[in-house]
Amino acid sequence: MTSKQARIAVIRGDGIGPEVVDEALKVLKATVGENTFEFVDFDLGAQHWLATQEVLNDDTLEELKKTDAIILGAVGAAPGSTTIPSGLLERGLLLKLRFALDQDVNLRPSKVYPNQQIPLAEWVTNGEPIDFVVVREGTEGLYCGNGGKLRAGTDQEVATEVSVNTAHGVKRVVRYAFELATRRSNHVTLLHKHNVLVNAGGLWNRIFNEIGEEFPQVKRDYLHIDAATIKMITNPQDFDVIVTDNLFGDIITDEAAAVTGGIGLAPSANINSSREFPSMFEPVHGSAPDIAGRGIADPVAAISSMALLLDHLERPQDAERIRTAVSEFMANRGDESLSTSQIGDKVAKLV
Amino acid sequence: MTSKQARIAVIRGDGIGPEVVDEALKVLKATVGENTFEFVDFDLGAQHWLATQEVLNDDTLEELKKTDAIILGAVGAAPGSTTIPSGLLERGLLLKLRFALDQDVNLRPSKVYPNQQIPLAEWVTNGEPIDFVVVREGTEGLYCGNGGKLRAGTDQEVATEVSVNTAHGVKRVVRYAFELATRRSNHVTLLHKHNVLVNAGGLWNRIFNEIGEEFPQVKRDYLHIDAATIKMITNPQDFDVIVTDNLFGDIITDEAAAVTGGIGLAPSANINSSREFPSMFEPVHGSAPDIAGRGIADPVAAISSMALLLDHLERPQDAERIRTAVSEFMANRGDESLSTSQIGDKVAKLV
Ligand SMILES: CC(C)[C@H](C(=O)O)[C@@H](O)C(=O)O
Ligand SMILES: CC(C)[C@H](C(=O)O)[C@@H](O)C(=O)O
Repeated sequence: MTSKQARIAVIRGDGIGPEVVDEALKVLKATVGENTFEFVDFDLGAQHWLATQEVLNDDTLEELKKTDAIILGAVGAAPGSTTIPSGLLERGLLLKLRFALDQDVNLRPSKVYPNQQIPLAEWVTNGEPIDFVVVREGTEGLYCGNGGKLRAGTDQEVATEVSVNTAHGVKRVVRYAFELATRRSNHVTLLHKHNVLVNAGGLWNRIFNEIGEEFPQVKRDYLHIDAATIKMITNPQDFDVIVTDNLFGDIITDEAAAVTGGIGLAPSANINSSREFPSMFEPVHGSAPDIAGRGIADPVAAISSMALLLDHLERPQDAERIRTAVSEFMANRGDESLSTSQIGDKVAKLV
Repeated sequence: MTSKQARIAVIRGDGIGPEVVDEALKVLKATVGENTFEFVDFDLGAQHWLATQEVLNDDTLEELKKTDAIILGAVGAAPGSTTIPSGLLERGLLLKLRFALDQDVNLRPSKVYPNQQIPLAEWVTNGEPIDFVVVREGTEGLYCGNGGKLRAGTDQEVATEVSVNTAHGVKRVVRYAFELATRRSNHVTLLHKHNVLVNAGGLWNRIFNEIGEEFPQVKRDYLHIDAATIKMITNPQDFDVIVTDNLFGDIITDEAAAVTGGIGLAPSANINSSREFPSMFEPVHGSAPDIAGRGIADPVAAISSMALLLDHLERPQDAERIRTAVSEFMANRGDESLSTSQIGDKVAKLV
């Protein structure tokens, strides 16, 4: 992949999506050069839907499949928007891509930079660094769209949602987590709720222990998701790699972002671990329509997602250059409020 | 209920359960007098199971149904315990009681006391108090035990969990939340994930808006559960009443406890809102076998649960006396470490 020119799809998306993607591309190009990658814009999201009533058609999906990677800003209308049905873009575009491109490993690193002010600073003492990665399953669980309604809209309505978990799906993401841990601090924590969700939790537990046996050097432990939300506040420095299902991963990574300095800093990669289809790189944050167009969105999450993209395209040194630049920027960020593009400029200069 | 002597079942349970229940009863008796209530011990939990291989038989359940209220310490073995199957006591006793006694409203107040040190103190500025209540649905959702396994133990295993939500179940808890809000700050927030869980989320949303229309004075808003875990850290002072489903309620109340000073302070009530069956009062924390028997468990959560019990038994003034005593105790608690029974003594003296 490093020899031929990689083709990268760019979905700027909605709200602050386009603003943060611009800065991410600025830093990416500053790192690898203007013409190392070919960028192909895909005009998808709220505007596209309003104009065409289409979220993502089959032809576009096929086009996306031919690319080497996808950069996505953010999609989704404002909560309570009346022009776009709730969840339409999230499910029809974002989740559709994760599922259709079999992006099983949703990778979400959290890291507190030197000098960075975080809410819990005085509690997380002894200078122990906070630096962990959540490996969230991306193609199963309650996200599979397997639910229904009986007697909808009446006093007798019954609404169901089914969480579907397969050995195949759990195995690949658990294995990924253990392999990742061997390149970090050799510690994997499974989050679930197996005292209540016995079937799904039992499957996760079994596979976690089976695969864990293959990695005797990796310490493994387990936390219920509720207890994990506590530990995320009291002892986040104890986490190294967390592995969990789609919904618990969604929840714990937002909390992790809040604890480690805000959703504006949290990058993510949706990885197709078999490399059959392109992987997708996006900030964890949403489209934040309330602050869109004002140049105040923090592009650090989108920029850091470019490091994950470069890791995936097997350019670890370039990835490291972005990480180092972000680290330097964060260490000297201070209290001054910078615009979205000023931040992009500063980081681009540092790479 | 205030005229006849109420009969109260006491399930001390496992781990630190018996220790904290002793202090709760000490404070309760100091408040209402030694003989105002009749207390009936029910020996249930890990020890009982080990001795009898029974978790909760039908006769005992019938006996419990005849009481006016239940006090429960905590149940459950240590995670990873090999003597007791994982989740057996949680499901067979705690959840069985919540379901069999139709305890639809799981009430979990969070409050930061004057002078109390909390992790986020310096971030939650302007002296705005943190004081909110989570109304967690207690009898439906993913807790209904409706799941299964196909090809268990093989590479082709499929494990499912079904979240079942009914208009009946959602309505009563949403109505409870709005009514509660009228006695507080007239603000209810629904937590769900309706952009992904369209069926269940749609039902919750519909009923939330329908019932909300009946309470024009109550402001209502909505947050996705992932976004809520962020707001719980950045702006917990903005919450008044939160209403949500069983699993999201489980997760957010543990985070809330961590944010507002620890799980050792968080009380709860499992209320049967129709008053057909007894309600149950328990600290949110678990049995914590690792610190059991050392007299270091914090009984404040169990003690505060007694205020919820007295509210339910229509003794609001007695309830308030306990709350005031806890408040005074917390304000002067300082850094000194007190034993479980010393804390009970101090609060009992203050009522
Ligand atoms: C927008 C939404 C569907 C999405 C999710 O729930 O996965 C988001 O919250 C995320 O974490 O990427
Ligand atoms: C012990 C467990 C089954 C229980 C729950 O999940 O409801 C506990 O976490 C709680 O919050 O009361």
